[in-house]
Amino acid sequence: MTGLFDGVLDRGPVGPLTDDAAWLRALLDAESALSGALAEVGLITVEQAGAVAAACVADRYDPVALGAAAAGGGNPVIPLVKELTARVGEGDPEAARHVHRGATSQDIMDTAAMLVVRRAGRALHADLLLLNADLRDLAHRHRDTPMPGRTLLQQALPTTFGAVAAGWAQGLADAARRLDEVLTHHLAAQFGGAVGTLASLDPHGPDVAAAYAARLELPEPPLPWHTERGRIVEIAAALGRVCGAAGTVAQDVVLLAQTEVGEVTEEGGAGVGGSSTMPHKRNPVAAVSALANARQAPGLVATLLAAQIQEHQRAAGSWHCEWLPLTDLLRRAGSAVSWLRTGVERMHVHPDRMRANLDLTGGLALSERLTTDLTPDLGRMEAHRRVTEACREAVGQDRDLVDTVTERLEGLRTSEQVRALLDPAAYLGAAPVFTDRVTGGAARTGPPGQGVPTAKKEIHER
Amino acid sequence: MTGLFDGVLDRGPVGPLTDDAAWLRALLDAESALSGALAEVGLITVEQAGAVAAACVADRYDPVALGAAAAGGGNPVIPLVKELTARVGEGDPEAARHVHRGATSQDIMDTAAMLVVRRAGRALHADLLLLNADLRDLAHRHRDTPMPGRTLLQQALPTTFGAVAAGWAQGLADAARRLDEVLTHHLAAQFGGAVGTLASLDPHGPDVAAAYAARLELPEPPLPWHTERGRIVEIAAALGRVCGAAGTVAQDVVLLAQTEVGEVTEEGGAGVGGSSTMPHKRNPVAAVSALANARQAPGLVATLLAAQIQEHQRAAGSWHCEWLPLTDLLRRAGSAVSWLRTGVERMHVHPDRMRANLDLTGGLALSERLTTDLTPDLGRMEAHRRVTEACREAVGQDRDLVDTVTERLEGLRTSEQVRALLDPAAYLGAAPVFTDRVTGGAARTGPPGQGVPTAKKEIHER
Amino acid sequence: MTGLFDGVLDRGPVGPLTDDAAWLRALLDAESALSGALAEVGLITVEQAGAVAAACVADRYDPVALGAAAAGGGNPVIPLVKELTARVGEGDPEAARHVHRGATSQDIMDTAAMLVVRRAGRALHADLLLLNADLRDLAHRHRDTPMPGRTLLQQALPTTFGAVAAGWAQGLADAARRLDEVLTHHLAAQFGGAVGTLASLDPHGPDVAAAYAARLELPEPPLPWHTERGRIVEIAAALGRVCGAAGTVAQDVVLLAQTEVGEVTEEGGAGVGGSSTMPHKRNPVAAVSALANARQAPGLVATLLAAQIQEHQRAAGSWHCEWLPLTDLLRRAGSAVSWLRTGVERMHVHPDRMRANLDLTGGLALSERLTTDLTPDLGRMEAHRRVTEACREAVGQDRDLVDTVTERLEGLRTSEQVRALLDPAAYLGAAPVFTDRVTGGAARTGPPGQGVPTAKKEIHER
Amino acid sequence: MTGLFDGVLDRGPVGPLTDDAAWLRALLDAESALSGALAEVGLITVEQAGAVAAACVADRYDPVALGAAAAGGGNPVIPLVKELTARVGEGDPEAARHVHRGATSQDIMDTAAMLVVRRAGRALHADLLLLNADLRDLAHRHRDTPMPGRTLLQQALPTTFGAVAAGWAQGLADAARRLDEVLTHHLAAQFGGAVGTLASLDPHGPDVAAAYAARLELPEPPLPWHTERGRIVEIAAALGRVCGAAGTVAQDVVLLAQTEVGEVTEEGGAGVGGSSTMPHKRNPVAAVSALANARQAPGLVATLLAAQIQEHQRAAGSWHCEWLPLTDLLRRAGSAVSWLRTGVERMHVHPDRMRANLDLTGGLALSERLTTDLTPDLGRMEAHRRVTEACREAVGQDRDLVDTVTERLEGLRTSEQVRALLDPAAYLGAAPVFTDRVTGGAARTGPPGQGVPTAKKEIHER
Repeated sequence: MTGLFDGVLDRGPVGPLTDDAAWLRALLDAESALSGALAEVGLITVEQAGAVAAACVADRYDPVALGAAAAGGGNPVIPLVKELTARVGEGDPEAARHVHRGATSQDIMDTAAMLVVRRAGRALHADLLLLNADLRDLAHRHRDTPMPGRTLLQQALPTTFGAVAAGWAQGLADAARRLDEVLTHHLAAQFGGAVGTLASLDPHGPDVAAAYAARLELPEPPLPWHTERGRIVEIAAALGRVCGAAGTVAQDVVLLAQTEVGEVTEEGGAGVGGSSTMPHKRNPVAAVSALANARQAPGLVATLLAAQIQEHQRAAGSWHCEWLPLTDLLRRAGSAVSWLRTGVERMHVHPDRMRANLDLTGGLALSERLTTDLTPDLGRMEAHRRVTEACREAVGQDRDLVDTVTERLEGLRTSEQVRALLDPAAYLGAAPVFTDRVTGGAARTGPPGQGVPTAKKEIHER
Repeated sequence: MTGLFDGVLDRGPVGPLTDDAAWLRALLDAESALSGALAEVGLITVEQAGAVAAACVADRYDPVALGAAAAGGGNPVIPLVKELTARVGEGDPEAARHVHRGATSQDIMDTAAMLVVRRAGRALHADLLLLNADLRDLAHRHRDTPMPGRTLLQQALPTTFGAVAAGWAQGLADAARRLDEVLTHHLAAQFGGAVGTLASLDPHGPDVAAAYAARLELPEPPLPWHTERGRIVEIAAALGRVCGAAGTVAQDVVLLAQTEVGEVTEEGGAGVGGSSTMPHKRNPVAAVSALANARQAPGLVATLLAAQIQEHQRAAGSWHCEWLPLTDLLRRAGSAVSWLRTGVERMHVHPDRMRANLDLTGGLALSERLTTDLTPDLGRMEAHRRVTEACREAVGQDRDLVDTVTERLEGLRTSEQVRALLDPAAYLGAAPVFTDRVTGGAARTGPPGQGVPTAKKEIHER
Repeated sequence: MTGLFDGVLDRGPVGPLTDDAAWLRALLDAESALSGALAEVGLITVEQAGAVAAACVADRYDPVALGAAAAGGGNPVIPLVKELTARVGEGDPEAARHVHRGATSQDIMDTAAMLVVRRAGRALHADLLLLNADLRDLAHRHRDTPMPGRTLLQQALPTTFGAVAAGWAQGLADAARRLDEVLTHHLAAQFGGAVGTLASLDPHGPDVAAAYAARLELPEPPLPWHTERGRIVEIAAALGRVCGAAGTVAQDVVLLAQTEVGEVTEEGGAGVGGSSTMPHKRNPVAAVSALANARQAPGLVATLLAAQIQEHQRAAGSWHCEWLPLTDLLRRAGSAVSWLRTGVERMHVHPDRMRANLDLTGGLALSERLTTDLTPDLGRMEAHRRVTEACREAVGQDRDLVDTVTERLEGLRTSEQVRALLDPAAYLGAAPVFTDRVTGGAARTGPPGQGVPTAKKEIHER
Repeated sequence: MTGLFDGVLDRGPVGPLTDDAAWLRALLDAESALSGALAEVGLITVEQAGAVAAACVADRYDPVALGAAAAGGGNPVIPLVKELTARVGEGDPEAARHVHRGATSQDIMDTAAMLVVRRAGRALHADLLLLNADLRDLAHRHRDTPMPGRTLLQQALPTTFGAVAAGWAQGLADAARRLDEVLTHHLAAQFGGAVGTLASLDPHGPDVAAAYAARLELPEPPLPWHTERGRIVEIAAALGRVCGAAGTVAQDVVLLAQTEVGEVTEEGGAGVGGSSTMPHKRNPVAAVSALANARQAPGLVATLLAAQIQEHQRAAGSWHCEWLPLTDLLRRAGSAVSWLRTGVERMHVHPDRMRANLDLTGGLALSERLTTDLTPDLGRMEAHRRVTEACREAVGQDRDLVDTVTERLEGLRTSEQVRALLDPAAYLGAAPVFTDRVTGGAARTGPPGQGVPTAKKEIHER
């Protein structure tokens, strides 16, 4: 699927960091680090390690040929080691005898997977931070822009676009933080030999393993994890969460961009998202592409979760079935975030439509506020009764709500007071406060605000 | 992922039938059929249709370039139609104006998907039939080969390898039958225009749609199914079932090939499945690869099922997220079956190990039979008590079961009678009968047998 | 979860047909049928079979006690058989010795599962037919009601509410047809004894199996299917498809009921879907509940698909993990359909809002039609250019589209002609034709129409 | 499903902590905390808060009645608040007017879900620690017990049962640590009112929210997370990982308990795991039940991941579809771990069978070691050639490997030297070292060992 659909669904830096060349580079990095570690522990000479390292250059190998050769043995490391050994042997036959020494194929594959995850994951994380910054800017700019809050896709009470965008930003920030934790702490080098005992290197196995991990700057696990796949599940879950957070924003954008809602539009310029035969359309293609990527995550995560159960010292099938979904999940997450960044860049916000939509319900949404205001005078039950009846009358007879309410209040409130109580822009509650917490709003516009104490209180959630 | 892992996981005819070239061919077949249909209904001339058809040759287009160009509009049909129109226009500018007429991109994509599914699915189905034939042969050859039946991975009563292989064959036959039904009856052409009304062709829309479907030899649906994705779900489920049936066999092969069980081995010849450092290993790599493919199906099916819920007349993301998992699911199913065929071809069956394994429990498995035989003499309770105690003694004191039982029966049965009752080869029940039903055993070896009436009774399950 | 959430999510007849009592009844039906079959083949007397049947009355057993007793042996049949044997033994000790004869626990459980699926599935199917009838009526009533067709949630061209509802009806009809096929043809009795050989009944095993299946009116499989779970997957897929088809309708209803769209509303009467504090809300709670049920299906289907791979003659865990998701899937499907029926019953359709929404784009959606009309006069390119520019001007300067177009056409068309061309109600294409195919519209209102030939052509898709 | 299957699949403390009563208690705890918070901020009196708190006693409410009443409004909080208000009102009508003040139903439901997760999760975590301790003991006891290491289910090189059990323990420890992190840091109170602005409490909303969270000892989020469901995904992933880690152990136990392997058995005592008709069976029912629970996790996690994408301020269906899978996932995880604990308690380890199985391959597994030993004398290629040929001869002619090797070495090594080189108990590599890292082995038996520095180095992985 490298061609036809790639332009539609794939986007951003993760694709090239997860392709054959990237995997090949990671596999060779692992072999090179192993030789370096063997030299460090004194099992081979530094020159021999150097000879191996010199041959570990990805673009000298043909991934398609290696893939074809892999069918016999069950994984691509076997032909790669054969090829690598041959190349090292051309210059240093003795060094060639130590290529891959002590390792099993899975050691190299799993370690390479960690490198691929770290490299692609770091690029994805950087994209997430940029997207988050864009969304926080957006939230800050629209800190006080009223818009309809919606529940069950029905207009409920007013909120602000700032609070909406702050919620989007927070979701992505939390997902980014978790991804960062996983990349920093929960990857691990893999080195155990055939059954995890490193017997052929005895008694130097643990020392080689430590040096190998250090060279790759990967955490050293307490013991080989050939069939303990919790790390893969953590990675998968972190990527799945990223997809969900991105998909949440993308779906909201699609909903807000509906013709009848029109509160945001995605303006991609000539030829992007337009329809030659339907010139009124502003297709939110970036958001749609983000969604299309994000929605593929749950199934991929499920495959990796189901593959967590692996047999004995190395598994029969469940390990092999990780490679495609893990790679694909990285790509879907990377593309979802990259598309969403594009969507946010293309986003036009329409405060006038937000206001017009608020007015669609003619103040009905604010009846709660009216009831509260009247409760001291009438008691809650009576206040509720009169407001409800006025609302029904306004809806049923298509009358102005201010008028019907003022009438039914029989002088308790003036028409101006009723109008003020029904003004959505004056009933935004803590929306700006919450927005500032996410954007650091006060810090931008003045002295430190509410964001700070919360940041202290709840460090794990920011 | 076209290179490095393909040799390991991909195998068989489905890969090339689902690659970019195959998709491109299908897309162009749809465009060509549309032009033919327009001519058939009289909306364009036969010559114009011919000009379009002449340009619909897949290898003249570059899928990578088309994919890159697709990012703007959300799907690869938009740039393909642009390119196709340009090429037709070089020879026949008038014909070029009718390229893609009346269609929306999704009409072409969905129809192409149906063609890809049919072509790849037919190849998969052919492979399934060949695999099924191999398994039925295997079952027939081992119709009377006793082996341990196992429940919860514990030896239970004896069965035959014939019955086991017949069960495998039946699972695959049922999955193949369902796949065939789906390919024959549940695909459909897609042609509805922008919102499923074919308004731009009015009043000829339905006639063009009918001609288009007929030319592609696809069923004509009662109305466009842009957002009614039940067909995709049926396809996915049929492929998922194929994977499950293949995975069931593959897992049994892996279990029977265990060093300690050794009832089958996969002999791949030099360099296949062996381990240079562990010469005793007979890695069942074909079965493992089949499993690795099969285990990816549930997640992919779940993605397609979740994508069944699509909005309005054409969906925002759920449609776009079908392409990759559908293609991948075809490949996993095709590769699982192809690897399994290879595994069955490489399979060596070891009746001696089956017998030796049966003897591991020293007749304990047959205690049920002993109890039944003694019930008329002793009553069931007393028979059960004596047999159970004898079994415990045999196990606990590591004595021969025949001896302990004969002693405890105090003359009721001779040691020869006891030995005969504990002979697993004489307690195979209906295993051969069931085997014949699947293999048509009697027809092969003599007069029609039990298979025939069952085939009549239960036509849907065979 | 039997209480607190049941009222929210569960609805309709499937719940009581899948509860403990329903399972218990099915288990006892299987045991009773087995005794009957043993008598039919002559292995026990008719009186003994009668004694067993008389004890097979579900309400005499306590499911909670049986469940608690099941922990030791791994399934609830073991304690049930013990209890059943004791009860039969009170009246007829000889008959008690033949309870469950020849069977393994899984025979009874799987057969009971088939009975539960058939009973619950039939009730679900009946509900689907009623829902389908309601939707076809709805489609017929709104055969000619124009509404905006929407793609990517943007207004595109007009369609009719009839065509939309017909699409909904067709999706549910196809899902219902598949469910019916599965219930009719793809269930099967299970009877194989410990390892599928029926050895303890030899040579009468196959005859007993046939009689057992016949008594339960279940198809007889060619051989036991203890670890060949394709049937479960077919059932799961059919239920998953039902959920998807129902969810598609429910999601459309939620979208059409948005405050800003308002084309349908769900009017549940006092206290249903309203909000005491937000009187303007018309929460589509039935559609939301249908969606909440439907969205749980893909994960449940994936669990059952993954469990298709089962070991040897009876599996270690994968079988046991079917019970909860299969039961839950039946309930989700049943509840989704039942809630959707309620949603359709409560549905109010607002043709005026559909028309008003169509007018939001002021004819822009029809520009395709205008271009087509002008092509003979201007050539397609020029026609497209002028229309596009007029549209841009109308949008950009907020002018009436008819005016801008008429101006730019410089006399080619009158303002009346332009207005007619931009009338959405006159550009509905084959929407009514497609609607009639689904509703049998012509048959309802006059002579046979287009529905009939299609029904002949494409019997599998109707 | 509360009765019939509960005994089979459900086990341990999580069940009662996730039932209707547990949910009801959590819902009332949230309402009570809200009243307390309102009083703390000064919006109601302490007496009024006390009146509400006094009515928030779970066993005074009927979950079934509440569930039935919930159908109208879409969630069970609506009828609960009505009922609670009525009860408070009996004693203190003024207090009754402030029940649920400022909150929306989802505030209470989500907060209750957090409480249920925390309570059930803590019990699960405690079980995990106990299980981990048992496994570490097991590992420590078998630190030096040789057994076959197996890859692709084939015997490869020797390992120790200590290393195997240490790997199990580590997988569960890592899963437990992640669960603890999630429970400690990633839960959060929910309090936002209808659309997340807390407008009705303005300007006291944030203060009430802070007090509410503090009273429940839940982290306070920066803003309401009604549709930002990353927390639910983290919880789901942590539970899914627990299931996978438990399932890995359970599957290994099932495989090691196979009749032909017999290295561990599960001895459940009379009537547990035995088969009355097959007395030789030692069904590992606890491990099987653990597996049956664990295998249901991936699908449930996928449902929750797919539900992460939620619309606007409160979602239409995706929120409602979390309740059942979240509750079920807690139960599956709790039951998997509880069953596994039982399985480990019942586990008998058979070092003699491990040794006998090692001898099955007659030293072939050690050929790697032989080759390494001979390489200085013969060069690697020649050493490998001679060893391989000797192995083939031994296998092919069923000869003793020591003899064939000694012959082919023509005096290079004595038969005693060859025998020593082929002794599996002398080729265990770092297995004991790795075991000690997990068990803290050195600390138990003497001075601090390798475990300690690793613990320092890699704090996140222990």
